[in-house]
This record gives sequence, C-alpha cells and structure tokens, in this order.
Amino acid sequence: MRNFDETNITEAVLDRVKNAPNPRVREISEALVRHLHAFVREVRPTQTEWEWGIDFLTRTGHMCDDKRQEFILLSDTLGVSMLVDAINHPVPEGATETTVLGPFYVTAAPEKAIGDDISGGMEGDPLLVTGTVSSSDGKPIAGATIEVWHSDNEGYYDVQQLGEIGHLAMRARFHADADGGFRFWSIKPAAYPVPHDGPVGQMLNAQGRHPWRPAHVHFMISAPGYEQLVTHVFVAGDQYLDSDVVFGVKDSLIRDYVRRSPGRAPDGRMLDLPYYHLNYDFGLKPAAKR
Amino acid sequence: MRNFDETNITEAVLDRVKNAPNPRVREISEALVRHLHAFVREVRPTQTEWEWGIDFLTRTGHMCDDKRQEFILLSDTLGVSMLVDAINHPVPEGATETTVLGPFYVTAAPEKAIGDDISGGMEGDPLLVTGTVSSSDGKPIAGATIEVWHSDNEGYYDVQQLGEIGHLAMRARFHADADGGFRFWSIKPAAYPVPHDGPVGQMLNAQGRHPWRPAHVHFMISAPGYEQLVTHVFVAGDQYLDSDVVFGVKDSLIRDYVRRSPGRAPDGRMLDLPYYHLNYDFGLKPAAKR
Repeated sequence: MRNFDETNITEAVLDRVKNAPNPRVREISEALVRHLHAFVREVRPTQTEWEWGIDFLTRTGHMCDDKRQEFILLSDTLGVSMLVDAINHPVPEGATETTVLGPFYVTAAPEKAIGDDISGGMEGDPLLVTGTVSSSDGKPIAGATIEVWHSDNEGYYDVQQLGEIGHLAMRARFHADADGGFRFWSIKPAAYPVPHDGPVGQMLNAQGRHPWRPAHVHFMISAPGYEQLVTHVFVAGDQYLDSDVVFGVKDSLIRDYVRRSPGRAPDGRMLDLPYYHLNYDFGLKPAAKR
Repeated sequence: MRNFDETNITEAVLDRVKNAPNPRVREISEALVRHLHAFVREVRPTQTEWEWGIDFLTRTGHMCDDKRQEFILLSDTLGVSMLVDAINHPVPEGATETTVLGPFYVTAAPEKAIGDDISGGMEGDPLLVTGTVSSSDGKPIAGATIEVWHSDNEGYYDVQQLGEIGHLAMRARFHADADGGFRFWSIKPAAYPVPHDGPVGQMLNAQGRHPWRPAHVHFMISAPGYEQLVTHVFVAGDQYLDSDVVFGVKDSLIRDYVRRSPGRAPDGRMLDLPYYHLNYDFGLKPAAKR
C-alpha cells in the first residue's frame, strides 16, 4: 500500500497495526491511531504547530527525572488522571471515594506509632488527625496500613525542600489498632501551586488557568482482602475547592479542620496555642474475587 | 465545580480551558481534551496501563537529543507526519508530490557546483542524478536551490557515522542552471530501518511491524515565489515500497535508478564499472498570495 493522503492514511495505519500479536496491544494501538488522527483532522495543524507539539512533548520528557514527573502533571491537569481513576474505582455504598495519587508519594515513609508527631520539626499550626478504617459494610479493620503525607504551612512537601530540612517530614506509615482506629499529630497543610516553571505551567498559562490545588492530607490505606484506597481529605473552606487544577475534589472528601482553643487535646496532650483537629472515618472496598 | 466522575469530567476540563486568551489555543486545547478523553473512555486503561503510558512518553522524551528525535519518529510511524503533510500540501496538476522530511536533514549542507561528486569518498555504486526544476505550469526556474541528502550503500546517513568518516557526505546544496537544470554524482542509496533501539522500536515490535524504509534520495527545493518542496525520489523495485514504516511512498515519487554499462556517461565522465542513472523533473507550486 502507498499513495497515502488525508482520506486513506488512517485505514493504512490501522491495517499496519492489526497484526499485533497481543490483542490488547492491537486494541490500544487501533484506538490510539483513530483518536489521534481524528484530533489532527479536526485541528488541521500547520507544519509549525506540529513542530511546536513535538517540541512541547520533548521538553515535557526532558523535565522528568527522579524528583519530578511532568507527564503525570500533564495527565493530571488535562483531567486524564481523574478519568482513569473514575474508570478503575467505582465506589460502593460505605466505601471512601478515591482521588489522584499525585507526584509526592514516597514508598519509604518512616514507620510511626499511633499518637506520634510526624511534623519532623516543621513550623505550623498543630494538627491532630484521628479516624478509623472499616470495611464498606462497617466492620473495623484491625492493623490496616495507613500511609499519610502532606504539605507544610506554605504548601511545600518535604521532598521539595530536602536540601534545607535534610530528612523526610510530614509523612509516615501507621498501623490501625485493634478497633481500626488511628491518630497522629502534624501541622496544618496549606494550598499550593503544582510545579509550573515547565511545559505544563506554560500550557496552564496559555489556557488562562491558575496552577493551585486546595489544601489536603494524602492517605493511602491497604489491608489484606481489600482494594488499596488512594485519596485525600481536603480542608473545608479552601478557596481552590472549586477550581483544583487537577480536578481532584469530591464533597465526600472535604472535612472541617476544626480550630480548638489551647488546653488539653482529646489524646491528653497539653497545648498552649490553638490547634486544629481533623477526623475522618475511611471505608475500604472488598477486593474483587479472582 | 467538583465531584468529577466518568460522566462529567470532560465537560469540566472543557469548561476550564475555555478562557484561553488566544482562540487558536482554546480550539486546540478543547479538541485535545475531547479526543484524549474519548481515547481513554474507549480503551479503559487499568492503573498499570496508564503508568506504562506515562513511562513510554517519558522514555521517548529522554531518547531525544541533538542527534535523535524520538517523538518525530513516533509521529512518523503512527502516520501523523504524513497526515499533517497531506493537510498542509494539496498538490495542483504539474507540481511534485510531497513526503516526510525525516530526521536526517542538516541545514549546513555544503554548497556544490553542478556536476560535482558529493559522495565524500563513500564506497558504493556510482549514481548520476539529473533533473530539472520548473513551475507547475512548466516554466523552468533558473537558480532554484536544491538540497539533497541520502543514505550510503548500507542504509546509514553521514550523521549516523560522523565519528568514523569525520565529515558530512552524500548531502549538498546546488543551484539550478539558467534552464532550471541540475546534475551531480553520488552513490546509490540502500533501504534502511529507522532507529529501533528505543521506545518506538519497542512499539513497532509489539505491533508486529518491521522498521524499514525503502531506498530513496531526499530533495528539498526552494525558489522565490514558490512553496518549498520537501520530498523523496524512491528506487523502483525496492522490497519495502508497499510497507514503508512511515507511510511516505507515492507512485509519482518512484523512479527507475537505471543500471548503465561501463563507458562514457551522458555528462562525459568515463566509468570503468557499471553505474546508475536517476532523472527526475520537479514541479514547484506557486506560493499562496498574501
């Protein structure tokens, strides 16, 4: 086959990928070709615009290293990450809704005991976090693994300032007690802009969009026999709840971070300054039978 | 806006990009979101497949440097480059058809005189190339700039082996004579695989495709008042004419590279070995009035 033009090139490429040995590779390749060509046919890029697109993708790739993932950021800001999340995580009654993982998760978070302070010496308003982990049918899950991470009071994560603070902070791994309960101290997180000094920032700017995410604490919760839950709990009242740049906010994931007066906290700690208290009770979805 | 799921996320993202100050940015952003989301909805990637996609794009970006452009190769092998070419270059009667630029064009090709040998000492079957440059209405274009480049007899370009040969070869810039004519000597090019040791090679392999292009000589021809012509002339009989990995072959661009017996060539050169002769008469399209 030869003599390809606007009317026959798509069929020609589909004909070429139809011999993929793996049926899933064939399915994805065919869909990619159809949708990519339909996009090109609709926007009719000039040669210069096509070159600009090649350069944009190249710069996005060059921005990726072991500390930054610009393609995930592109997926997040185009709503693709939340769409993939929605497709993969239908939520039954009683289970907590999911949202994006984000780029700041670290597998090697330090193991902490229930009640510990995980702020790592960072300054900010003290925050007491309490909650439970249950099955979506309400049964407590003793020993569930709870990983948490969040930004500081200026919106920066530990990994963005490791050079200055020298250690991980505001992140930990806990195990729920016999009743599925957990609690820990940290500092209240702030809203922050996603990294916007690269190609994705350039795109957001061209699209007339701000780069901000509303303040939140990340949770990843796992237990044998349950689907891993990846979610955030957002701070009620944040100004970016309705314009989160990565489309991650759900009403069920917003909670009051309640301001409390100085004095004895529910866990017995004495505070001579005001502090905040967040409580969230998580529901895990039983794993699909295999 | 919040609470995004599979049914409303696309509208939400479209709503976010509608404030792009530049209407063309808005148009391209909206089409990108619609087609990208439609692709994701159709293939319903698992979280693992999405991660694989992110990693594929990242590795493709990391493979790009000043000597290699893996995203252009991806565009070429998915038929996108030829589609963009077709959209931008409708060809009127009498004008030569276009095809892809490819990754081996170099702006700094050496200036040569009509009749020169541009092989740069590379071994191979001698090739005499002759031709003319005219307007699509048949009028000769005196002084037209003709840039040519091609592979050696094993399918490698000079820039892929600069370390060994130490200089550019098999590429030059000429100016047509008063009758629009040109001629030069070089060596007969061979078919070759596109670079396939990276992500694109991995994709081709997964799709059950070979990475080969049929043998050809590249031409880029310019003259004041005419659209620049970017094309190849392919070698008739090549085994890859019907399966060019970048979909670039058109019948009108195939010519016999005619084998001639030793003796005096049309330009007077004496050859004691057989040689090949290619003739192609190019037609340029008048530039659009502004």
